[in-house]
This record gives sequence, C-alpha cells and structure tokens, in this order.
Amino acid sequence: MNKKPHIVTIFGGTGDLTYRKLLPAFYNLMETNHLPDDFHIVIIGRQDLTTESYRELAKNWIHEHSRYKVHDEKLEEFLNYVTYFEMIFTEEEGYHRLKEYYQSLSPNACHLYYFAVAPAFFEAIAINLGKADLASNSKVIIEKPFGNDLESAGQINKTLTSIFSETSIYRIDHYVAKEMVQNIFTIRFANTLFTNIWNSDNIKSIQISANELVGVENRGNYYDHTGALKDMFQNHLLQILSIVTMDKPTDFEAESIHEKQEEILENLYIESINDDVVLGQYTSDGNSKSYRDEERVYASSTTETFVALKLGLHHPHWENTPIYVRTGKRMHKRATEVVIEFKALNNEKPNVLIIKIQPDEGVYLRFNIKKPGQGNDVQTVFMDFCQSCNYENRVNTPEAYERLLNAALDGDRTLFASYKQVELSWMFVEDIVNQVNHQDIQFYEAFTSGPHKAHELLKRDGNHWIEEEVYGENYISSIE
Amino acid sequence: MNKKPHIVTIFGGTGDLTYRKLLPAFYNLMETNHLPDDFHIVIIGRQDLTTESYRELAKNWIHEHSRYKVHDEKLEEFLNYVTYFEMIFTEEEGYHRLKEYYQSLSPNACHLYYFAVAPAFFEAIAINLGKADLASNSKVIIEKPFGNDLESAGQINKTLTSIFSETSIYRIDHYVAKEMVQNIFTIRFANTLFTNIWNSDNIKSIQISANELVGVENRGNYYDHTGALKDMFQNHLLQILSIVTMDKPTDFEAESIHEKQEEILENLYIESINDDVVLGQYTSDGNSKSYRDEERVYASSTTETFVALKLGLHHPHWENTPIYVRTGKRMHKRATEVVIEFKALNNEKPNVLIIKIQPDEGVYLRFNIKKPGQGNDVQTVFMDFCQSCNYENRVNTPEAYERLLNAALDGDRTLFASYKQVELSWMFVEDIVNQVNHQDIQFYEAFTSGPHKAHELLKRDGNHWIEEEVYGENYISSIE
Repeated sequence: MNKKPHIVTIFGGTGDLTYRKLLPAFYNLMETNHLPDDFHIVIIGRQDLTTESYRELAKNWIHEHSRYKVHDEKLEEFLNYVTYFEMIFTEEEGYHRLKEYYQSLSPNACHLYYFAVAPAFFEAIAINLGKADLASNSKVIIEKPFGNDLESAGQINKTLTSIFSETSIYRIDHYVAKEMVQNIFTIRFANTLFTNIWNSDNIKSIQISANELVGVENRGNYYDHTGALKDMFQNHLLQILSIVTMDKPTDFEAESIHEKQEEILENLYIESINDDVVLGQYTSDGNSKSYRDEERVYASSTTETFVALKLGLHHPHWENTPIYVRTGKRMHKRATEVVIEFKALNNEKPNVLIIKIQPDEGVYLRFNIKKPGQGNDVQTVFMDFCQSCNYENRVNTPEAYERLLNAALDGDRTLFASYKQVELSWMFVEDIVNQVNHQDIQFYEAFTSGPHKAHELLKRDGNHWIEEEVYGENYISSIE
Repeated sequence: MNKKPHIVTIFGGTGDLTYRKLLPAFYNLMETNHLPDDFHIVIIGRQDLTTESYRELAKNWIHEHSRYKVHDEKLEEFLNYVTYFEMIFTEEEGYHRLKEYYQSLSPNACHLYYFAVAPAFFEAIAINLGKADLASNSKVIIEKPFGNDLESAGQINKTLTSIFSETSIYRIDHYVAKEMVQNIFTIRFANTLFTNIWNSDNIKSIQISANELVGVENRGNYYDHTGALKDMFQNHLLQILSIVTMDKPTDFEAESIHEKQEEILENLYIESINDDVVLGQYTSDGNSKSYRDEERVYASSTTETFVALKLGLHHPHWENTPIYVRTGKRMHKRATEVVIEFKALNNEKPNVLIIKIQPDEGVYLRFNIKKPGQGNDVQTVFMDFCQSCNYENRVNTPEAYERLLNAALDGDRTLFASYKQVELSWMFVEDIVNQVNHQDIQFYEAFTSGPHKAHELLKRDGNHWIEEEVYGENYISSIE
C-alpha cells in the first residue's frame, strides 16, 4: 500500500473504545492490506499488564468485534504489531521512557497519537508529549466531545495547537466517516437527477433523524450532565446537516470541504428558541426504566434525552427550506437517516429521497407514475437500494473507524473536523442551551416517536416527519 | 357509468381489426362497467351473414383476444349488443335502410361510426352518411394511415370536415393510448425529480426506439409501397416524440395538449437529410427470409424496413439536445421505449431514465451512489418498475383500444390527433421521403441491431444507443 512507516500510540488503550473499535478496525485494515509494512501499535496504560497478557485480552476483543471472520494465523500476525507500555500518562516521566522505546521499535516512523481518553486529559498528554519532544511532525487523533462547551473546547484547542499544528490534529466525528454519510457527496454531486434540484426551489423540507431504541444505559453519569443537544446535535447532526446542505466544494480536499461546511454552520439559525426547540425525556413504557430511574441520573433531572429543532439557513439555495432535526433515546425505532422531501406537484404526493445511514445503509426513492388502467390517476412507487441488506455488500462496508484510521495514516483530513467547525457548532449549541427552558421538558413514553410537541413542530408548517413506507404495495427492493 | 346511449357502427366489421381489437375491447369495457346502459354495436359487412352467425364468429374472436378471462354468461350478455347489418358501404342505398334500422334500435342514441376500412373508402362512407342525413351530431373514428401523403391526407380531411365537424373526428393513433405513453405525462409533470430537469441543460440526448422482431409478414403488398418512414415514423414515433418534448399544457384538455404537440412538430428539423437519415432493409440471417424474398415484395425493392434519424428542435428547452429515433423490423429484440440520457457529471456514468412502452411496461432509472468501502469510487444502481411483469398489474392495464373507445364514447379527444398534427407530420415526413436517397439503403442481417451506419449516426456525436442493462450486478426489480 506504500504507506509510510507508522507507530500508532493509543492513550487509553485499556478502555472501551480501544477494544470495541480501534483494535478490530486495525485488524480489518490489515486484512484489506491497508497497513504500512513497518507498523506498530503501542498501547499506553497504567495497569500492570505485559505485552503478552495484553495480547491475550486483545484476542478476545478482536474475535468479538471484527467485521471479518478472524483467522488465527492472521490474528497472530496482527498481534505482533501490538505492544503494551505501562505508564501514567499524566506524569512526564513515562514520556521519556516512551521516546526511548520508540527508538527500539522504528526510529524513523511517523507518529500517530490516539487520545482515547476523556477530554479532561487531552491537554496533559499533549503537554507531556511536547516536553519529551515527541510532538513535532506527529499527528494526533482526538475523540469527541471536543470539550463540554465553547470555552473548554477553545481551551483544549489552544493547548493542542501550541504543541501540534492545526493540520496535524485529526478531530474524529465518526458519523462523518459512515458509509452512507460519505455517500451523500456522491448522491448529490454525481447525479444530474439530484444535483440541480438540490435547493429551495425544489426541496420542501430536509429532515435529519438519529433515533435510538436504547436508553442511557450505563452512561447516566456522563449523560445527565450532557443531554442530547450536546451529545448528538452539536457534533453528529450538525455535521450531517452541513454535508447535506453545503455548496459543492471547488475540489475534494479537506480545506475546500471544510470551508463549505463552515459556511453552512455560520449561516444556520433558529427563528425562535422558544417555539422551534422541543426537549423531551423518556418515561417508562411499563417495563422499561424511566430516564429518571436510570443509574447515576438525578431523580428530578430535566436533562433532555430527545430534542427536535426547526432550523433555517441564510443561504441563496436554502432561503425557504425548513430543516428539521431530531434525535432521541428510547424511540420507536433505531434509524439514522436524512429525508429530502421534494415539493409536490399538482397535489400529488411529493417525491422523497431517504438516505439511510444506520442500521440499514441504503437509498430510498419515491416517485409518481400513472396508475395502470383507464384514467390518469397517479400512484406512488418506491425504490429501495439497501446495501446493508445484502450480505455480500454488507461485509464490504468498512466500519467508520477503519475509514478514519486509514485516512489518518494517509494524512487525509477530509473526514475530520476543522476547529472552526467545532467552534461554530459550539457557538450555535450554546446559544440554544443557554436560552432553552429545561422546565418545559416534554415527557414521552419509551418506544414511541417522541413527544407530541415534536410532531406539532412540523404540523404547524403543514409538514410531518416522513418515514419509509416499508411494505407499501409498490415497494421495490434490491434482489440478488 | 352515466354514459349517453350510443350506437357504434363498425364499417369493416368482418375484418382483422374488428375481431382482434374492437370486439374484445368493447367486451372488456363491459367487464369494467364502461359501457352505456343503452348500447348497440352494428356490424356493417357485405358478407351474407346473419346476426346469429356473426355472433358465433365473434364468440371465438373474443375468447381468443380478450385480456380478461371470458365468462360465458357475460359473453352472451355482450353479444346481445351486437347485430349484423348487410350492405355495400360504397352504395347509398344501404344507408337509408341503416337509418331505419337505427330507429328500431334506439332512436335517440348518439352515433359513433368506426371506419375500420382502408383509407381509400373513408370518403365514400362519409359522403353516403351525409346523404342519408346520418352525419350530424355524430362522431367518427378513423384509423391511421390518414392518407398516404400530405395531399391524400388533405383530400380525405377536406371531405370529412365537409360532413363532420373537426371536433367530431377521432383520429386514432393507438400508440398514444398505450399505458406507458400516457404515463409519460405523469412522469414528466407529477415529479419534481424530473419536471425541472427536462431540458437541454440537463438532458444530453433523447432516444426513441420502436423495434420489432417480426418481418413484414403478410403485409408485403402494403408495406412495399409504404416503408418504415410512413408506416411508423410519420405517426407513432412523431406522436411519442411530441409527448416527450412538449411544454406543459395549460390544462389537460384536448385542445391544450394538441397545441403544445403541434408546437413541437412545427419546430422539428433535420440538419442534413443526407447525413442524418439512415435507411435500412433486412437480409436473411441464414434461416429467415430477406425482405426482398418476402411475398408480394419487389425483388429489387429499396423500401426501408428500418430507419434511424437524428432530429433537432428549435425550442428554448431543447436547443442542444439531439433526438435520435429509430424503428425497424427483424431487429435484435422487440422493444418500444423512450430513453432519456441525462448529462454526466464528474466523468461518471450518466443518469438514465427509460420509459418502456412495449412489450414490457415500466420505468427504469439508473443513477450513481458510492461504492461501498474505502475510497469514493462510484457505482451505478438501477431501479426497474416493470408493471407488466407483475401478473396482477398486467391484467389491469387496458389495451390501447379500450382506452380509445372509452374516450370516444365519452367525447374526450385528448388521445386523438388533430388534423394539424397529421398535416405537420406529413409535411415533415414528405420532405424526407422526397430527398432521401433510397439507393443508399443499408442492408442489415435479420435479428441484429440494424445497419452499422445507424450506430455511426450517434457515435459521430459521442453518443450510442442506450439499452437497459437487465442483469447488472446492482439490478433492482419489483417484487410481489
């Protein structure tokens, strides 16, 4: 693959993210020949483990989470890349040892640091890397949340950019790297069918949903201080929104794409925070726990597990298209998708394009033809290209983390957020968080489509949340 | 159905058209409750038959050609409508008897005369109907060909309009009444997806094909004096072309539609008859007869059994879109279809919409999505809504003649050609016929895709005849 020699160092190498996502992703990158010949993964942890004992643990994780069937010889080969390095990453001492260790592994390799730790530790690690002279010409990957608000994000960024250059910082928003989010670019810019009608003249509404069946699970402590606005909307949903609405970039380099995305974030607005933001919190359906009964959640919490917003864009192409966004836990179904509702003609049903991001990956298109028979009645037909429903294609869809790690090894920053994007998103969200009335939170029963008010939000405009009609009589599905 | 009482009189009632199309169509209209309560079909013939013996013959024809399963009681009920009236339709005498006969059937019924005879007899019948005072407030249906050239068409029309008003004349071009030709209106005008990109800015080429597997069959005598230009292009193909390219009419009344179609015919042009018209004639494939060996065809005939043309439109929406039209006998497949080739973006494959008219009825749409996996490679996916492939829908598709007869009973002329359309079509075709060099006819082997030159015609412009990729890996088909 002609990739440069690399040492990947994972801070937080004994954590959830490493075993569920990072190691399986690297293993799968090896399977698909995307790793450099000279390659090393250094796991940083404070636990008393050896490389041997860590590899034993890693074996199980990879078996459990790889998207390819794991072959034992391949796995042994892969584990040879992985070594465990015990140190306390808040203390400078370890970094000097680490530097020596790198010399023994591959003195001229590029460095990629992965901060798989809480954001509170980003600065400490960066500073210590700087002190040990390990930061220059190195890349660093950080995970969202990029801070907890505009101020902390700014503080972290200030420290990071004092040590690393902006172009060395890879801010992961793994939603951006999802197969079907990347597909939005192709759908929009490689089809005459869509590219010239992607505007207010032809699009009645844009709807972005990220709904989950699960509740807050074991993340009550974190979640109760965060809420859906900060946990989902500030990052994933605003990223998707900007990809759906951005102008065509002059080229597909990182800077060009970021510039157009930033333009969207700069011009996004809410007409009335009072009227156009609906916060919700799930209650029990009889069997499930209400949010307030979840572990490590305040009994009188007003944290939102659901949010729906009506947004607008000051942009020549989007002056009259409302953008509805919602995300919630304990919803009626698990589905992240983008709905493009085209304007209806002659009182017929509107054309609809749905880009299905997860769990199904696909494209759904609905349009009108004449109903067979006498007269000119119109019927709606659907097409549904579900690539994840097709086993053969499904296994070919790389996990977001594979795509991200591969891009980082290649030095391709298109999939990663610029600081300006992070900053603009936080500015937008803080405004909402500061003004919205949490006392007005709407309770919704678990496994329903969210609070009544979130439906009223669209009804007011003569719209409704559009969902795929899966078993309509004119349903067209992919075949093998 | 609240239809007015009607007497339908069929001149040529013992001919092919009557038994294969008209009687089965009326039978099926009864099945679907589209006939008036007070209804009669009078069969005019010179043969020595009685109503009883004619009904016996009709029984078999209907059994053979009805698209619904025939029920014996229903058929008996239907045959009660049908009576046989013996007369020689070139002689006035019979018409006076006919008038009396009508009195005995239903004195106040509306009259619909169907001229299912060679055009040479149109005038004689019309004149005699006039003489017997049977023409006023009556409707008349005439079959193509409307004459053999501009002059004869004008002559027939002059006579007809001296007896019947223009709005009483129903000129059948049964292609216009085909399910999927009517669907073109819906596809174009009920979908935002298509309606705003239906122009030269977005459409690279329009291709209209009407290909047959059959040869000239037992029609050598007629065909050898006619050829594909007059037999298919002058009527069916120019009708389809005008429906595909016409502006949206102000309403869907006959006059408004005809006006927009006429506008197309007025602005159609061929840049160079020499370069842009390819005539072809089929030869044997080893087993089949060559055209020149067919019965009642001249041994040195230069009549075209194939024609391909490149046309243009002087019209603000179509200034730069070539329109390729072809029709042929003994082609590689039987398919009448309209291909809309959209402009390609970023060197990707173009989006393609195919409207399949016959024998399959359906809509085929091809567009681009991202190829699953690392990178941003593009793949083409297809959707194919084939309503004739679905048994349940198939039987619901009325035959063109059902739709036409039903419309004529209702007095709806939208499906019928105005004389101006006929005239403009003949003007356009005569220009070609008079200038094209029949000595340059291109021979093509039976069951191939026509002469080489017909492919060169498109290649010159960087185009090619687009056909559906039926079994591509990303083929999407309708399911039950």
